[in-house]
Amino acid sequence: MNFKEEQSKRILEIEEIIRRYLPKEEGWQKTVLQAMNYSVLAGGKRLRPMLMKESYTLFGGRGREIEPFLAAMEMVHTYSLIHDDLPAMDNDEYRRGRKTTHVVFGEAMAILAGDGLLNLAFETAAKAFEIGDDPARIGRALSVFAQKAGVYGMIGGQTADIEAEDRGGQVSQELLLFIHAHKTAALIQSALVTGATLAGADKEALDKLEKAGYDIGVAFQIQDDILDITGNEQELGKPTGSDEKNHKTTYVTLKGLAQAQADQKTLSEEAVALLRSFPSRNLFLEELVNSLITRNR
Amino acid sequence: MNFKEEQSKRILEIEEIIRRYLPKEEGWQKTVLQAMNYSVLAGGKRLRPMLMKESYTLFGGRGREIEPFLAAMEMVHTYSLIHDDLPAMDNDEYRRGRKTTHVVFGEAMAILAGDGLLNLAFETAAKAFEIGDDPARIGRALSVFAQKAGVYGMIGGQTADIEAEDRGGQVSQELLLFIHAHKTAALIQSALVTGATLAGADKEALDKLEKAGYDIGVAFQIQDDILDITGNEQELGKPTGSDEKNHKTTYVTLKGLAQAQADQKTLSEEAVALLRSFPSRNLFLEELVNSLITRNR
Repeated sequence: MNFKEEQSKRILEIEEIIRRYLPKEEGWQKTVLQAMNYSVLAGGKRLRPMLMKESYTLFGGRGREIEPFLAAMEMVHTYSLIHDDLPAMDNDEYRRGRKTTHVVFGEAMAILAGDGLLNLAFETAAKAFEIGDDPARIGRALSVFAQKAGVYGMIGGQTADIEAEDRGGQVSQELLLFIHAHKTAALIQSALVTGATLAGADKEALDKLEKAGYDIGVAFQIQDDILDITGNEQELGKPTGSDEKNHKTTYVTLKGLAQAQADQKTLSEEAVALLRSFPSRNLFLEELVNSLITRNR
Repeated sequence: MNFKEEQSKRILEIEEIIRRYLPKEEGWQKTVLQAMNYSVLAGGKRLRPMLMKESYTLFGGRGREIEPFLAAMEMVHTYSLIHDDLPAMDNDEYRRGRKTTHVVFGEAMAILAGDGLLNLAFETAAKAFEIGDDPARIGRALSVFAQKAGVYGMIGGQTADIEAEDRGGQVSQELLLFIHAHKTAALIQSALVTGATLAGADKEALDKLEKAGYDIGVAFQIQDDILDITGNEQELGKPTGSDEKNHKTTYVTLKGLAQAQADQKTLSEEAVALLRSFPSRNLFLEELVNSLITRNR
């Protein structure tokens, strides 16, 4: 398997699905629809829908009821970026080299575009009821998908992060892990568990995926902290040492570089072992997870 | 039937259900949970969940799978108020005599509380799958519930309204009706159609309810415009004549007072006739709708 080639192919497939569920830019509410599409079509690796699709495949899923969920997953991720970038939140003017939504469309439209995408995510996911033939299963998938995005998932992590920043970025290890587990890992868990639920995976498998999603999300964030110290500025495309400069508590400042690297390795190995523990295997999914947690940039 | 007494009794029942689905204020994300509860528990007539419940009853619904939907309905309504009040939107400091969410909790928390409530609405509605025994029906109810809140429903109306205000409040009749039909009527349609869908109403009945919801929402808004001219300031609890002072296009400025009153009457009569056209009747629902569209304040 040529991983990069396979990944590019899959990104194109997911892009096509996402576009199919995006709104047409017409009607009296056209501006908010433009703002939504502008943000969703800003590019990216479509990592979360890709994890969802591969998890679905791993458990034998072969239907098309996954498709609206893939689009919905990216809508949730995108709305969270739009609202995160708002002046009252992180106040970011650029993301992936493009002006952020509120810079282009104004703050009111950015708030509405975020709301619109979050709402559209559920409208879209609910279209699976028209496609699939097991509404109880789709209901369970929708339920976990919703929970992982909410106040006991991503929004919970975002809340804790904002409050920690307001206090100068000083956090305990417990709080730091809460933030990573919710702000980052929750949507990865959502992707893995929602996909497997739609494919009919059993409770034991879903629990393992929940754990794997946690491991991947936290390992990803620890790697971020490690790269801020050991990384190559050219490879990363951003300056290193910013956490130290900002007196920010990170996994590395709490535990030291060597321990952080060891913990990151443990989490990564556990994640891959979990993904390999099922009757079937998905080599692309294993490679994908591996690329996330061993990245140099 | 003593309408006021019945209404008070039903408000208490709905309050109890809503409270059951609100989050406990604990954990690292406690602040956002407090902001959400502060906003939902600000009071109000719980009109939308009440309409939903009565529509469900009208079509013979007797189960408890409606309950999470009732709570979800009020969460959607409340999130829309929180985001509407934000500085970048209407910039309101008070609502129902209490400080608005962003004044009490700050702008970032108000954005997150709105997001949290919108998301929680879908988490909550999805709990119906654990209660009811017809997941396909619940899926259809969830679908219409989501659509009416989104960019082709309430958010669409909000977008058009914000843009109209930016242009000085001058709108065509077509745009004014679009705003009323989406910003106000969409959630009333959501209440009536979601409730009836859960009870198993057929397509013809749902179409009639969709029309009735439109009539009620638009009649309600025209009455608002009429009262701004003919109303008693003491009864209304707010100054009259504000639309004229702000050079705001209203249904009355477009069509004249007499025509506005005639159209309001036509819409109201059609709404009540539609609600009376089913094999069963719900006298409380008829009274409730009547009280909304013939109000003097």
